[in-house]
Amino acid sequence: MNLLNVDTISETTDKLKKYCPFISPKTECVGLMQAVGRILASDLVSSENIPPYRRSTVDGYAVSSSQLGAASDMLPTFLNVAGEVLLGEDSSGLSVGSGTCVYTPTGGEIPDGADSVVMVEYCESFGDNMLAVSRPSSPGENIVQPGEDIKSGELILRKGRILHAQDIGILAAAGITSVPVFVPWSLTVISTGDELIPPEEVPGPGQIRDINSYTIAARSIREGLRVSRMTALKDDWETILKTLEDAKADSDIIVMSGGSSKGKKDMSSALIKAAADCGVITHGVAAKPGKPTITGFDKKSRTMFIGLPGHPAAALMIFEQILIRIWRDLTSQSEESTIQARITSNVGSAPGRRTFQLVSLTKSDVPEAMPLFAKSGMILPMSQADGYFEMSENQEGVRAGDLVEIHLWK
Amino acid sequence: MNLLNVDTISETTDKLKKYCPFISPKTECVGLMQAVGRILASDLVSSENIPPYRRSTVDGYAVSSSQLGAASDMLPTFLNVAGEVLLGEDSSGLSVGSGTCVYTPTGGEIPDGADSVVMVEYCESFGDNMLAVSRPSSPGENIVQPGEDIKSGELILRKGRILHAQDIGILAAAGITSVPVFVPWSLTVISTGDELIPPEEVPGPGQIRDINSYTIAARSIREGLRVSRMTALKDDWETILKTLEDAKADSDIIVMSGGSSKGKKDMSSALIKAAADCGVITHGVAAKPGKPTITGFDKKSRTMFIGLPGHPAAALMIFEQILIRIWRDLTSQSEESTIQARITSNVGSAPGRRTFQLVSLTKSDVPEAMPLFAKSGMILPMSQADGYFEMSENQEGVRAGDLVEIHLWK
Repeated sequence: MNLLNVDTISETTDKLKKYCPFISPKTECVGLMQAVGRILASDLVSSENIPPYRRSTVDGYAVSSSQLGAASDMLPTFLNVAGEVLLGEDSSGLSVGSGTCVYTPTGGEIPDGADSVVMVEYCESFGDNMLAVSRPSSPGENIVQPGEDIKSGELILRKGRILHAQDIGILAAAGITSVPVFVPWSLTVISTGDELIPPEEVPGPGQIRDINSYTIAARSIREGLRVSRMTALKDDWETILKTLEDAKADSDIIVMSGGSSKGKKDMSSALIKAAADCGVITHGVAAKPGKPTITGFDKKSRTMFIGLPGHPAAALMIFEQILIRIWRDLTSQSEESTIQARITSNVGSAPGRRTFQLVSLTKSDVPEAMPLFAKSGMILPMSQADGYFEMSENQEGVRAGDLVEIHLWK
Repeated sequence: MNLLNVDTISETTDKLKKYCPFISPKTECVGLMQAVGRILASDLVSSENIPPYRRSTVDGYAVSSSQLGAASDMLPTFLNVAGEVLLGEDSSGLSVGSGTCVYTPTGGEIPDGADSVVMVEYCESFGDNMLAVSRPSSPGENIVQPGEDIKSGELILRKGRILHAQDIGILAAAGITSVPVFVPWSLTVISTGDELIPPEEVPGPGQIRDINSYTIAARSIREGLRVSRMTALKDDWETILKTLEDAKADSDIIVMSGGSSKGKKDMSSALIKAAADCGVITHGVAAKPGKPTITGFDKKSRTMFIGLPGHPAAALMIFEQILIRIWRDLTSQSEESTIQARITSNVGSAPGRRTFQLVSLTKSDVPEAMPLFAKSGMILPMSQADGYFEMSENQEGVRAGDLVEIHLWK
């Protein structure tokens, strides 16, 4: 392979990033339940104290701790029950004074004069209004102060956050019901090749089912991206060019796979030159798998082109390394979490190319990662693997027992 | 707390599992793209060899390796090009014999008589049909054999698998376009409490916004479950009972939160007794957080009831530990992957109760887990945490430096 004409993975993404201002993700505001799993498009600050008032964390009696002294089972303190806090109602008429207490349910507002709550478990009622308390309390006990959970002005969620269940709860608590999120890119996914047939057909001589448009579209959906069009096309210039022109109108990204190796029928590069006003940006990436990768850009329609290798595992890996990484970067997502594992055997790297090695993991104090080797064009090992690790362009491989950083499938 | 009347987490789920045959998830068949992220409902076996024929993994010339001998740059072997394999077309008319070769693009069917493919990089054309080959080849080189990726009869995906992008690719490759998946449970999610207002309103005295129905519904959606109804209700017997009766008609699971502690307004237990023909199954769970948890079951309508604690973090954790775990178990999902981390400080456990401790992680060879402590009723720490670890009922806590197994948020 001639390494002089290819870009490294980072050169490829760096070159594309120059064009990214043309396709930087838009933002929209959606309701709380529509925001589940979406990516937050700006930092969010609470404009309120949460809780808004002093709240009880238990069912009990609001007291002034100074009144209880060293109350115990043997020598309880007797207090007069001056009233009851009702949930959801104004308790400003209630207060705790000398020798009195107020019943306060979990979540109830603490009345004036009280500084703590004694759990019902340590109290016994006598007659209508008398209470024996068998434990002392300390100031602040069983109370959440106003703003103790979230302070007014506090940053509650950061831009780039994928909104999990607990984040939706925080937004609800803070009264933020219109949530700014990124609008996912819209993708057109095209497989090309005269040998391709749809999955529902039975392959005849020399035919094979289209895999790539399904894996790439599925991977996009797993990432929250939208697939506006997916299709498998024969290697016919006019048909593909027409599809590219149509796709430019409604897609941020056009992903093609197949047709990017050196064979006679390879015309992806010429097609991108014909369809994209900035032409081809990268032709060939120093990656294993993934060498025959092409990128391009059309400024007029604001469309990024990426031509992936035809081999399914290579196509998916390069899509992950280039497109998904750029998307995560542009949406300010924090780095993906990886796990450390001990590799079980030596693995060689491809000198000058970034190498991606599939592994399957077995559990242990430090997990063990077993490399899975497969010929190009095979798909099952991708599914049998739990994830992969990277070896950089200058790395000479890893030795059995080395710690490697595993990226798990999403 | 009286521990004699409460169940452990496993007693709680074991008791519920007896009723699970009534709500075991149904299955349905969906198309490939609808199957993305769904849970496979049966083992799938390929009925075909993939690839179906001998395929070339490179652009090159199909040869018989015995013809090339020790071909080199200095002493190339000259072969006659007998034809060209066209992708997608029947190549049964082509064959490789003595002194001949056939051009075969990546993915092309290997002609009879050839046992390997020499990459175009090692070949040079002379005249119309002569080829100089400057490298020997070995049998099988650059060829994928029929069934080498997937054999006919081979198990390709297991029941319980969450279908990732590469799995969709495998299904496409095997021609399985109608995919058996589990039908998600349908949930009704109810928050109860006189103090609750919807997130879009501004709390008045003693009022607080509903958090639990949002976190529980969002968590359900993240898990692929369906939420048919979510609502916050005042503590009014008739209103709640009417909602429970309506929900029984269209929900597999009814989740209530709030109203399960010992306070005066607590009536969840009585409501479940009134609405569910098997009544209350567990009342109180030995967990921290999460003690005031109730479960119940209605056989006639095939509905499971779960009353969660009112505190948001406790409600979410118990929902995770009981309902999500039962769902994963019934759908044959493999154990969730966890990561090992070193805890940065001592953490005490609650004797006799399973304790769930939030942590935030910092990266290191072995990641460090910093415990996050928060009063009951607080929600922000849930979002600041990366996950949690468990301490069993009999464990006395962990010491700084101990390895703990972290469950990451989904």
